[in-house]
Amino acid sequence: MEFNIQPLSNEDLKTNLQSKIDNKTKPVGALGTLEQIALQVGMIQNTESPILKEPAIVVFAGDHGIAKQGEVNPYPQEVTAQMVYNFLNQGAAINVFCNQHQIQLTIVDAGVNHDFESIPGLVDAKIAHGTRNYQHEAAMTADQCSTVIRKGADIVKAIFDSGSNIIGFGEMGIGNTSAASLLMAYFTKIPVAECVGNGTGNGSEIVDTKQRILNKVFEKHSVTSPMEALATFGGFEIAMITGAMLKAAELKMTIVVDGFIVTAALLAARALHPEIIDYCIFAHNSNEQGHQKMLEFLGQKPLLNLGMRLGEGTGVAVAYPIIASSIAFLNSMASFESAGVSNA
Amino acid sequence: MEFNIQPLSNEDLKTNLQSKIDNKTKPVGALGTLEQIALQVGMIQNTESPILKEPAIVVFAGDHGIAKQGEVNPYPQEVTAQMVYNFLNQGAAINVFCNQHQIQLTIVDAGVNHDFESIPGLVDAKIAHGTRNYQHEAAMTADQCSTVIRKGADIVKAIFDSGSNIIGFGEMGIGNTSAASLLMAYFTKIPVAECVGNGTGNGSEIVDTKQRILNKVFEKHSVTSPMEALATFGGFEIAMITGAMLKAAELKMTIVVDGFIVTAALLAARALHPEIIDYCIFAHNSNEQGHQKMLEFLGQKPLLNLGMRLGEGTGVAVAYPIIASSIAFLNSMASFESAGVSNA
Repeated sequence: MEFNIQPLSNEDLKTNLQSKIDNKTKPVGALGTLEQIALQVGMIQNTESPILKEPAIVVFAGDHGIAKQGEVNPYPQEVTAQMVYNFLNQGAAINVFCNQHQIQLTIVDAGVNHDFESIPGLVDAKIAHGTRNYQHEAAMTADQCSTVIRKGADIVKAIFDSGSNIIGFGEMGIGNTSAASLLMAYFTKIPVAECVGNGTGNGSEIVDTKQRILNKVFEKHSVTSPMEALATFGGFEIAMITGAMLKAAELKMTIVVDGFIVTAALLAARALHPEIIDYCIFAHNSNEQGHQKMLEFLGQKPLLNLGMRLGEGTGVAVAYPIIASSIAFLNSMASFESAGVSNA
Repeated sequence: MEFNIQPLSNEDLKTNLQSKIDNKTKPVGALGTLEQIALQVGMIQNTESPILKEPAIVVFAGDHGIAKQGEVNPYPQEVTAQMVYNFLNQGAAINVFCNQHQIQLTIVDAGVNHDFESIPGLVDAKIAHGTRNYQHEAAMTADQCSTVIRKGADIVKAIFDSGSNIIGFGEMGIGNTSAASLLMAYFTKIPVAECVGNGTGNGSEIVDTKQRILNKVFEKHSVTSPMEALATFGGFEIAMITGAMLKAAELKMTIVVDGFIVTAALLAARALHPEIIDYCIFAHNSNEQGHQKMLEFLGQKPLLNLGMRLGEGTGVAVAYPIIASSIAFLNSMASFESAGVSNA
């Protein structure tokens, strides 16, 4: 699937936006990162007066072959499906934060190892009942991987068509920190051991085992392209986020990037289309240790550093009002001239 | 004026709150700082189900004797009054962010060097037309300082009586980073030079002069008590925040602490009543360099680190939704049991 992502290069607009920001009734630069966000979103929307429309978060859920054994994950695989029901029943953290900020939440079955009845609010994009175990073979076929990318793109297109221009992604998948660690190792060339952290809820005793197993997996496979990396180390939910992000950038939506898993999906998207970074705001620094290194690799400083490590897109939701503050000051603050305030 | 501030010591409640937090459908600790905030606000409100009522920000404005000369401040003293009008006309950053989050904003003339006509929305608590210049004499008299504290307390009491249980404070006063630096030096015993930063909008060339002048001021006065420090280095707006904070803690309100100036006011409040810290949530790390050192002195890690250095209470307003997220998850997330999710 081809994506056409434009780099942000309107230098005249950039100058005008910066001038608008600098003429607000505050010292130059005094709103810090909020000013950078205002500038970036203005550039993405190609206007001096950007607005945030119908903010959306999509949570993709999928299961992982490796998780059946429980060697790398303390929660049983069933929890993926249980948490999908929890999302649909409004009981999870991401529900609470989306309700707080009027963010439209979409839940997608990208490949959970469970047959859901037809449930209002659950988007069926199931590829299979979980990926294969990459200890033995690639997590998915090349065909599956292409389908995953396309389905992710289609879901974003529908949300865009409903009027949204800012979107974030979350995930649920027992075992998916393992897949993310492998993708991180491939795309950043950082040794596997440094890419492996505690995962959600793991004690430190499990980490050694996880490092050993994943290092073996990484060495077993010979991977030669971004798409092959996605297919091999997989995660239907992760690859679907990659496709979703690429489409969002093509549609000039602002992409708010969550934690470790989602940033792994971004590493793949960026390998395919480097310009995607222009469209990304990094929501938070996850407490999963590999995430900090991913952000350093990308040269990005996230908005929040609150020690969160839950996934589900919760970092996006909690950070969203800061992005809204950025747009609000740009559009609503008085200028020195309009307020009659003496400038320095 | 006496304040009766209770330390938070209900250990049974603390245990119950932690248990409630840990049984939410997420790994233990996975919401990071949000969990700590939920616990703290529960302790402040003495309940397992805290709620945030009528959030309020009060901006105190005052002028400083030293600012008439322009040696320590690039903006003229008139800007204090001009910004008060900007607040009243809804044009400042703090207006935008308070409107965004439905925070009730109160503007107080604590001692601006300007005669305001009677304006709806402006609280008249004027002590004098600015403080005296501490290069020559104490910024205010002991009587003035007591009056300032009382007026700050009275303003908070009225807001509490109107139904609020969470409050933050902001300030506007050309030259007030100098007063805050002197108070910081007194309360933390950190050398004056290390307490002095750029201030709002100063270039680096002015900092050397500011350090030299303030060091001379600090050595000129012999100060032997917190109240004397407040009176000497002054800032009507700063001392009024001290009184406001003390009253807020007495009333068991959650106090959200803004940047450098407001934290200087807190240092004075804490010297008078150390228990006040239990009631404080630190909103952000200001880009004013002394603030980081103040926070280290207090052993506190703030919610945000966005390079903001505007004052006005803007850090409080931008951080507020994170506190609201903490309370929302505590009250609205499902537990493992209620959601039927397997725990690890």
